[in-house]
Amino acid sequence: MAEQFDAVDIIRTKRDKAELTDAQIDWVIDAYTRGVVADEQMSALAMAIFLNGMNRREIARWTDAMIRSGERLDFGKLPRRTADKHSTGGVGDKITLPLAPLVAAFDVAVPQLSGRGLGHTGGTLDKLESIPGWRANLSNEEIEHQLGAGSGAVICAAGTGLAPADKKLYALRDITGTVDCVPLIASSIMSKKIAEGTDALVLDVKVGSGAFMKSIDMARELASTMVDLGTDAGVKTIALLTDMSVPLGLTVGNALEVRESMEVLAGGGPADIVELTVALAREMLTAAGKPDADPEQALRDGRAMDVWRAMIREQGGDPDAPLPTARHTLDVVAESDGILQDMDALKVGVASWRLGAGRARKEDPVQAGAGIEIFTKPGENVRKGQKLLTLHTDDEDRFSRALESLEGTLTVSQEPVVERASVVLDRIAR
Amino acid sequence: MAEQFDAVDIIRTKRDKAELTDAQIDWVIDAYTRGVVADEQMSALAMAIFLNGMNRREIARWTDAMIRSGERLDFGKLPRRTADKHSTGGVGDKITLPLAPLVAAFDVAVPQLSGRGLGHTGGTLDKLESIPGWRANLSNEEIEHQLGAGSGAVICAAGTGLAPADKKLYALRDITGTVDCVPLIASSIMSKKIAEGTDALVLDVKVGSGAFMKSIDMARELASTMVDLGTDAGVKTIALLTDMSVPLGLTVGNALEVRESMEVLAGGGPADIVELTVALAREMLTAAGKPDADPEQALRDGRAMDVWRAMIREQGGDPDAPLPTARHTLDVVAESDGILQDMDALKVGVASWRLGAGRARKEDPVQAGAGIEIFTKPGENVRKGQKLLTLHTDDEDRFSRALESLEGTLTVSQEPVVERASVVLDRIAR
Repeated sequence: MAEQFDAVDIIRTKRDKAELTDAQIDWVIDAYTRGVVADEQMSALAMAIFLNGMNRREIARWTDAMIRSGERLDFGKLPRRTADKHSTGGVGDKITLPLAPLVAAFDVAVPQLSGRGLGHTGGTLDKLESIPGWRANLSNEEIEHQLGAGSGAVICAAGTGLAPADKKLYALRDITGTVDCVPLIASSIMSKKIAEGTDALVLDVKVGSGAFMKSIDMARELASTMVDLGTDAGVKTIALLTDMSVPLGLTVGNALEVRESMEVLAGGGPADIVELTVALAREMLTAAGKPDADPEQALRDGRAMDVWRAMIREQGGDPDAPLPTARHTLDVVAESDGILQDMDALKVGVASWRLGAGRARKEDPVQAGAGIEIFTKPGENVRKGQKLLTLHTDDEDRFSRALESLEGTLTVSQEPVVERASVVLDRIAR
Repeated sequence: MAEQFDAVDIIRTKRDKAELTDAQIDWVIDAYTRGVVADEQMSALAMAIFLNGMNRREIARWTDAMIRSGERLDFGKLPRRTADKHSTGGVGDKITLPLAPLVAAFDVAVPQLSGRGLGHTGGTLDKLESIPGWRANLSNEEIEHQLGAGSGAVICAAGTGLAPADKKLYALRDITGTVDCVPLIASSIMSKKIAEGTDALVLDVKVGSGAFMKSIDMARELASTMVDLGTDAGVKTIALLTDMSVPLGLTVGNALEVRESMEVLAGGGPADIVELTVALAREMLTAAGKPDADPEQALRDGRAMDVWRAMIREQGGDPDAPLPTARHTLDVVAESDGILQDMDALKVGVASWRLGAGRARKEDPVQAGAGIEIFTKPGENVRKGQKLLTLHTDDEDRFSRALESLEGTLTVSQEPVVERASVVLDRIAR
């Protein structure tokens, strides 16, 4: 069959700073999915988009074309309204784990189609897989049953049927230096979320050293773009910009983060985790038509924990089984008396990754017990020799490279430290 | 073996408008040649270079790395000095054919390692292959013999050993919209010419509708870049900017252009072809240390024709054999009385290509006899019905698409036409 367009013409159009037409975008995404547009052509186009941008119409059409490359789920048939959350990824970001059952405790269905970790940010599925028996892969029927008649919360692997064009393009961007680009990030995230068919979506856009977005301006631009895309597609969409300059909570790693999440569900847990979980829950509940729900109460009275236990069981897991621990630990201590000045999220994330909590390549395994426990956060007073972190791994010779990645952070001096007032930096809605 | 660099880091460097180091450039060209850097990575880098440029040092290193990807010839052992010419390609540009024997007539060796045509510009080898028996593929030994003890002129296919990185990159640029970029064009041309090992090089940089460079500014930038590269590599390099808004001479096509070239070698031929051939010959002879040579005299007295005949015979051709002709012809006539206003080089080139003189894909055959004869040039008076062009093809149903590509040119009106004073627009040397 003769093709309607020529890939080189489309690349040249964007290269020369002109707008792509709707028909050009539809064709190039479809032809790329079919393999008619080659990877080397799409990577040249992605670089041209990276450097010359896309306007709002182009981004919306690009997103829509990626949605149309695959199947759409439809949670509209469910007896409950649905609300979803997406985080752009950070270090120690286990919020999905307490959040999904917490929101579901108010009879709102929470479909969390999640991914695995790659690089220094952890993956939600990797964390849950440290629970004995728990499985990430569910059929569409299992997902719908769990959301409708079941616990109301599901955290599982996204099927391969949603936005296959995005799957292919995402892998390509990873190896061609075209990841950190607002139009491409926004369309990638939103194509999957819109295809999923949720009623409401709350976006947690991370800012800081441990996040993709290093600057608040770029994070705000990304958040606004995604809120526009969601709203235009009929999904009630809100974004919070949240701090990712230090790790979230006091644990980084798979089983370690599950343990901390269960502390939050039991009414305890670190203040920043509780704050962000509650803030996101309020947004999701309000967007789903329940502005009067009290998530703090549901954490205190055990309703959220009940949903957690039901959800874990529905996916084959044992919520009471002991979590795996690593074979070896090593303490990192303060080198002098004073105030802890910093704890760089990226450096801690890389250290945890090197301890075995993350993977360098898609096919690598992860260690369930590996990671980092945090005992002191910046701004706190410490004594020389006091424990700051404990590193966990099954593999003793990983300690040296993990320690290397912590160089230049965890400094102690007499300088006062300005502590952040809140994890939430800004809110964007339309 | 562990690689010294990471392709994604190098792509990001250029993407973020920073300079590539010498070591980065050496590695990326070498790793691309080895297949360690993937096509989709090189195309992203090429687009980043297209949009963010390279400085003089980067271009020189890039060129040098491509030279080092393959073998180098060394004509320094020859008893004669060598001078080479490169044209950036145009319509009706058969200058290499009379030029090589003309310069060789003054005891200067002329190694013309040439290519085949792709798209609307003809290929020198395609033209010569219309001569019965003539062969384009010579061994390095045959080339050296012909340049040393033989006629002194050789026009043949470039071996696969010269700058293989460029060969790979050129094919990639063609399908990724990264062709028209000064740093990449300059390094592509000059890597092959420097690897060839010539003493002197004259560049014919075409400007106008039938050329890659549509504007004189971009042509001047390309010419300066190439003159710098050649000079820095120890090759005496001069560039002429020449007009390519109308076809050169009165023929476009393979055998048709051979015939016209032989007219020039016999002391006749169209004025613009003679002017450009003589201008380029003077530059080559001066650069090769023979400023007093008189190329016009060598055309008149038959010395250039003698070298031509010897050169064609050395490569198996019969200089006296009749040239092939096409089976069908069609005249294009003036639609009214008046002055011929224009003859767009690109449109004529595409028409000739569609008649069968050129190829759409590398593996396509070409017709030896196909092409266009020109009877009238812009600025001349014509009568209604007077013949402007004759189209030649073996394949009658090609006429209609050829005529389509001539739409919008060959207009006749009473307006006076400003004729170009000279084909040579500018000269660039250091």
